Amino acid sequence: MQVFFSEDHRLHFPQAELSGGQFVTPYERPSRVEYILRQLRERGFDQPADPGPCDMAPIRGLMDPGFLRFLETGWDEWIAAGMKGEMISATNPVRRTQMAREPRNIDGKLGYYCLAQETAITAGTWRAAQSSAASAQAAQRAVAEGAGAAFALCRPPGHHATADMFGGYCFLNNAAIVAQMFRDGGADRVAILDIDFHHGNGTQDIFYERGDVLFASIHGAPEDAFPYFLGYADETGAGAGEGANLNLPLLPGAGWDQWGSALDTAIARIRDFGPQALVVSLGVDAFKDDPISFFKLESGDFTRAGAAIARLNLPTVFCMEGGYAIEAVGINTVNVLEGFLNG
Amino acid sequence: MQVFFSEDHRLHFPQAELSGGQFVTPYERPSRVEYILRQLRERGFDQPADPGPCDMAPIRGLMDPGFLRFLETGWDEWIAAGMKGEMISATNPVRRTQMAREPRNIDGKLGYYCLAQETAITAGTWRAAQSSAASAQAAQRAVAEGAGAAFALCRPPGHHATADMFGGYCFLNNAAIVAQMFRDGGADRVAILDIDFHHGNGTQDIFYERGDVLFASIHGAPEDAFPYFLGYADETGAGAGEGANLNLPLLPGAGWDQWGSALDTAIARIRDFGPQALVVSLGVDAFKDDPISFFKLESGDFTRAGAAIARLNLPTVFCMEGGYAIEAVGINTVNVLEGFLNG
Ligand SMILES: [Zn+2]
Ligand SMILES: [Zn+2]
Repeated sequence: MQVFFSEDHRLHFPQAELSGGQFVTPYERPSRVEYILRQLRERGFDQPADPGPCDMAPIRGLMDPGFLRFLETGWDEWIAAGMKGEMISATNPVRRTQMAREPRNIDGKLGYYCLAQETAITAGTWRAAQSSAASAQAAQRAVAEGAGAAFALCRPPGHHATADMFGGYCFLNNAAIVAQMFRDGGADRVAILDIDFHHGNGTQDIFYERGDVLFASIHGAPEDAFPYFLGYADETGAGAGEGANLNLPLLPGAGWDQWGSALDTAIARIRDFGPQALVVSLGVDAFKDDPISFFKLESGDFTRAGAAIARLNLPTVFCMEGGYAIEAVGINTVNVLEGFLNG
Repeated sequence: MQVFFSEDHRLHFPQAELSGGQFVTPYERPSRVEYILRQLRERGFDQPADPGPCDMAPIRGLMDPGFLRFLETGWDEWIAAGMKGEMISATNPVRRTQMAREPRNIDGKLGYYCLAQETAITAGTWRAAQSSAASAQAAQRAVAEGAGAAFALCRPPGHHATADMFGGYCFLNNAAIVAQMFRDGGADRVAILDIDFHHGNGTQDIFYERGDVLFASIHGAPEDAFPYFLGYADETGAGAGEGANLNLPLLPGAGWDQWGSALDTAIARIRDFGPQALVVSLGVDAFKDDPISFFKLESGDFTRAGAAIARLNLPTVFCMEGGYAIEAVGINTVNVLEGFLNG
């Protein structure tokens, strides 16, 4: 399986994450990918290929122009405004401010384009986010050209980002970008399977009113887990997308019995949908020792998950998402990939 | 003019405000009221009266029950969940999460009921907010019983708080509580004049669909100033409230020429509305040296503002809101009151 990875992910390394009313060292940190690279190497995967530059055209087609402009120029505006810290939002368009317009002030603009305040933007964030999307794009191109599957070792992750908001460590929605590229390349129907512990609110939001992209997600129940305000089972899509959104929230403590059964449900729905390509939002924070999650998967369960996904027998792009039990992130991620290859 | 004030405001004193990506000492701090008390004393006002306990009945009639429960029990839940810092929200129901349900998790609940993250909740916040509302209620009762005017030295302030969200240093919307008490006491129509530098988004939101309470506000343009996502001139009310909301946003640098002219416009609209009582959201952060604002009023202009308000000749309750140029806060606040008394 081809692997795509850019060293430019290092350009995004905030010092601070707002958590429990304090600033902590971000859980989503550069060292996460080192553990994945090492496992790939030790287990005989090809050397990761650099993806080359990010192709902005398919991103511009999917994302809000103001949001992209903000990601590109926000840091400079922030510094020019005399701000001393990293870009951490302190205000948002909340309930009943739905007609909100983009403010001129960078502090307001930051809030306008932010969906959760744990995530800081720094000088290198935009370039890192582009390099992450570039890996996803390279993986898509490899699969579109006939590779059965490819792994985009994306960092920062993407599935929380909407077309117009960053947050949850995500800036550009890599999985959504890949799905759209499959559509643009001629696939009539594409499925996205999100097995990250957290609900892929961004991916859901982007395709919620579309019937051509199925989104299926297994995640911590929103009553109990970030991102809290989306991810309920009754969110089934709207308009042309009615029925093309499947949320499978699970309660704290869920292990393989429940998780694997939810995975079977998701896979059956994907099979019924009849897609020509599959995108997997590959987070491994469903692991039992993940510090910010509450599922109980063992490392071996990730192998089983990969094997189950393989039985869909679809051209498949894996996009790396979350996973914060740092030393296990590599093992669990590569378990999914090996399970898929051997499945 | 009677003054109402509770020492319990001191129970709310967060150590941290999220500003410019850093934690700073909150601009809204206990010492603000000391300067006001001193000016009142030096300029011959009556000794402030303690308001006694807060009457929760009129508050329950106006605010969301879940929000009040959160304010009352949130801190204990936060501590029980093992959080180490003050309660600072890291996530919100943002755009397109309008069907959001209250999470069970306290971190999610905090985000659900928060409209801006600069504002921390601490152990004493709820009692302080109640004591602030109690001062407003006592001032309302004094005016309802025949005093021409009264001053509620409220801290924390109130005008950013909606029926279901805190933020902008505000927890309970004192001005809205007073307006509703006048209505419940038999006034057919009540006007709220908000002269704080910041838009009173909470007060607007509470009465937006009601025709019995006019809200008029002069404030920094939302493109440039907190709270950013409300306060535009085209927000004129909805449903039965259509026409009963008047926003007069002004651009950076506005001085008495523009501000006084906007005040005349607001006062004319209030007169046309024909209310039986007036509530003034009395912030003095329109002052030229205010550290978080951008208007250019001189101290003498606040005297003129008070005199202009007096010409409405209405039973009037002043509720203290913002003002962060600490040493001038007392002078400017009491200038409004003296201008009113001599107007
Ligand atoms: Zn995750
Ligand atoms: Zn203010």
